[in-house]
Amino acid sequence: MIPNTSAYPAKVFINGKILDAGDATISVFDRGFIFGDGIYEVMAQVNDRFFYRKAHIDRLKWCLQQVGIRADIGMFESNIPALLEASGLIAKDSMLYMQVSRGTAPRQHSFPHGISPTMMMYAWPKNFPDIEQTHASVLTMEDFRWSRCDIKSTSLLGNVMANEMAMQNDAYETLLVRNGIITEASHCNVFFVKNEIVYTHPAGPLILDGITRQVVLELCEQLKLEVRHEGIAAADIQNMDEAFLTGTGSQVMAIKKVDGNSLFESQSGPVTLRLQKAFLEKKYSS
Amino acid sequence: MIPNTSAYPAKVFINGKILDAGDATISVFDRGFIFGDGIYEVMAQVNDRFFYRKAHIDRLKWCLQQVGIRADIGMFESNIPALLEASGLIAKDSMLYMQVSRGTAPRQHSFPHGISPTMMMYAWPKNFPDIEQTHASVLTMEDFRWSRCDIKSTSLLGNVMANEMAMQNDAYETLLVRNGIITEASHCNVFFVKNEIVYTHPAGPLILDGITRQVVLELCEQLKLEVRHEGIAAADIQNMDEAFLTGTGSQVMAIKKVDGNSLFESQSGPVTLRLQKAFLEKKYSS
Repeated sequence: MIPNTSAYPAKVFINGKILDAGDATISVFDRGFIFGDGIYEVMAQVNDRFFYRKAHIDRLKWCLQQVGIRADIGMFESNIPALLEASGLIAKDSMLYMQVSRGTAPRQHSFPHGISPTMMMYAWPKNFPDIEQTHASVLTMEDFRWSRCDIKSTSLLGNVMANEMAMQNDAYETLLVRNGIITEASHCNVFFVKNEIVYTHPAGPLILDGITRQVVLELCEQLKLEVRHEGIAAADIQNMDEAFLTGTGSQVMAIKKVDGNSLFESQSGPVTLRLQKAFLEKKYSS
Repeated sequence: MIPNTSAYPAKVFINGKILDAGDATISVFDRGFIFGDGIYEVMAQVNDRFFYRKAHIDRLKWCLQQVGIRADIGMFESNIPALLEASGLIAKDSMLYMQVSRGTAPRQHSFPHGISPTMMMYAWPKNFPDIEQTHASVLTMEDFRWSRCDIKSTSLLGNVMANEMAMQNDAYETLLVRNGIITEASHCNVFFVKNEIVYTHPAGPLILDGITRQVVLELCEQLKLEVRHEGIAAADIQNMDEAFLTGTGSQVMAIKKVDGNSLFESQSGPVTLRLQKAFLEKKYSS
């Protein structure tokens, strides 16, 4: 069923079993398939540990609670070593994806009683890019997603469509604009810098409070950079000194172009660069 | 894997095969599961034909186009007779569910190239309720869904959460309120009547333009009822004379209570009743 490409992971953990990726199936009545009724999480393994593991696990638990899915996340945690072993990824730089759906039941919108959640996870090797040398082009578009973006749900069609628009235009990401204000991007948070002050949209229902976003805010405090939790108007982007994206896979990535206009230098700006260096130090220190 | 309850359909069509429901599986890498990246449709069979079949099929094609999924809907259409036969539902009152996901690929937000969509459908027997005797209690809540509700997508967690709120409160549906205006319900459209004028939220990106909604608008024209395509403010519900829900399964259902207040009679109001009678006549005439 699955085309044989190296981009699939070797193994998939599903409901207690570790299977070859091509054998990992679910019922068509899984509510993850029928309703996008699930929560997911992604975390990075570097230097033989998962970076901000507790923060990721806590967010997964919080999101599940928000949507009323009861799942034993300990089942994920206790099976991570076996999954990494089976995947040949013990102590290797890699990513771990975890997804919980509400489970399998005849189709009805409301929550069925007495079903078990579907728990799936897999890991794949990751060579994290040299972030100081990576500069993203981004687009802007209307943020047409729901207003519970703080829930890391698998009902992601809005994000998928926004990201596809970036790909269609040879860009890396799409910045989303709600009522004139930039909230975040399709799978990253976004920061701006003006006069050495760091701006980012406040946490709350309109953005996913990314773990890398939280790390960057901690680093700003350590570096004594002033932070304002304020969204930047799309119309003000051109007045900003620097901009960058954050995400578990994207790390801290300088933005060089917005909507085809080279607003920022091809080198990371000085504040972005300080944060990138501090981020890498934190991520790769043990 | 599937608990053996009668509420599952007997058979499932999936990618050209008709299988027992318990054998109908998809890869965990199906984008319907990972991203809610799919479109669905539901239609009703009565009197040996599908009611407004062309309208349902056309909407399915339109929605797929909106999200850039290419699928041969003829494959559904040509397999409906075999599915009904296998399901024991030839010429029996029943419902047909169809779902298309973008297909199976290693996880990436943007659209993968060179994959085939996943096409799934199943039918189940349906005894349509006596609509003149069925009266719904409804709640109201903030419409926190995305602003492309005109796309009948499977990224439905917002609708699921809204519907669950109704169930938790022994209600049938939840009316959704965006900027003070009632848009629709979690899986129905909503109409109001005041001074014999029929009101419903205009079609557009904030509602799913239901086929039953369209039928009711046709019937209003036939019955020479004035229609205003205007959303009603949540604060004005108490001033309305009548209200009803529409949907393929719900048909034309009078609303009797809103947020626990009996605003409407337990009998259908006179305009609702006229529309219900006209609807049943249209649906059951051959």
